[in-house]
Amino acid sequence: MRQTIGTAILSALIAVATMSLMTSDQTSAQPKDAPRKMLRHVVLFKFKEGTTKEQVQAVETGFRSLPGKIDTIRDFEWGTDISPEGKSKGFTHCFFVTFADEKGRDAYLPHAAHQDFVKLVGPHVEDVCVVDYWTQK
Amino acid sequence: MRQTIGTAILSALIAVATMSLMTSDQTSAQPKDAPRKMLRHVVLFKFKEGTTKEQVQAVETGFRSLPGKIDTIRDFEWGTDISPEGKSKGFTHCFFVTFADEKGRDAYLPHAAHQDFVKLVGPHVEDVCVVDYWTQK
Repeated sequence: MRQTIGTAILSALIAVATMSLMTSDQTSAQPKDAPRKMLRHVVLFKFKEGTTKEQVQAVETGFRSLPGKIDTIRDFEWGTDISPEGKSKGFTHCFFVTFADEKGRDAYLPHAAHQDFVKLVGPHVEDVCVVDYWTQK
Repeated sequence: MRQTIGTAILSALIAVATMSLMTSDQTSAQPKDAPRKMLRHVVLFKFKEGTTKEQVQAVETGFRSLPGKIDTIRDFEWGTDISPEGKSKGFTHCFFVTFADEKGRDAYLPHAAHQDFVKLVGPHVEDVCVVDYWTQK
């Protein structure tokens, strides 16, 4: 009886531990090996000469507010150029927006919050570059 | 006695299940909420008119081979432009390389495998844009 209970405890522990490992593996593999393709929306800004620090910050804050306003944005990050290669073509800001699919991107582009942001940015940018792509490895 | 063993089994199961959930939460939170900043290296290519499909594919294959040759590349993805906005400035390809830090990027740039790739690409691209940034949310 003691052995049976011991075996039962051991089996239960092994089962739960195995489930734990499986869950852990699946989630930790997600960032690197996920086969799920995502739609990336890469936006580069070059600001006009004379744009103030406050105006640049208003653009940064404006873009950063969009994920909270447009629910088809699945992920968002941004940063300012620090490439030592001298090939940034004057683009100082990169905003990197992720959608699940084209439907998500197509809901974002005409969205009132995005259009308000476009109006905010317009007067300050000398150049904009936008590239969208489906992720491939 | 039976109750004690029952309680022991239950406690053990709860402990392992809790550990399982904790592990799962930590890993699943990683992609979206990780406070760890990464260094992104965004590369856009515009190919010269007359570049053949095979030459473009050789460039794609060449870039895709770099993560296997340069171990400071922490993540890699790429894709071809499908933006409907008409602001891609002729850039058709985006390669998105992730490093842990500037040391990783600085090991990549002069790396023999990268330099070989630069030689392969050079004759075919009309324009290149490179922006590096530390991820911010």
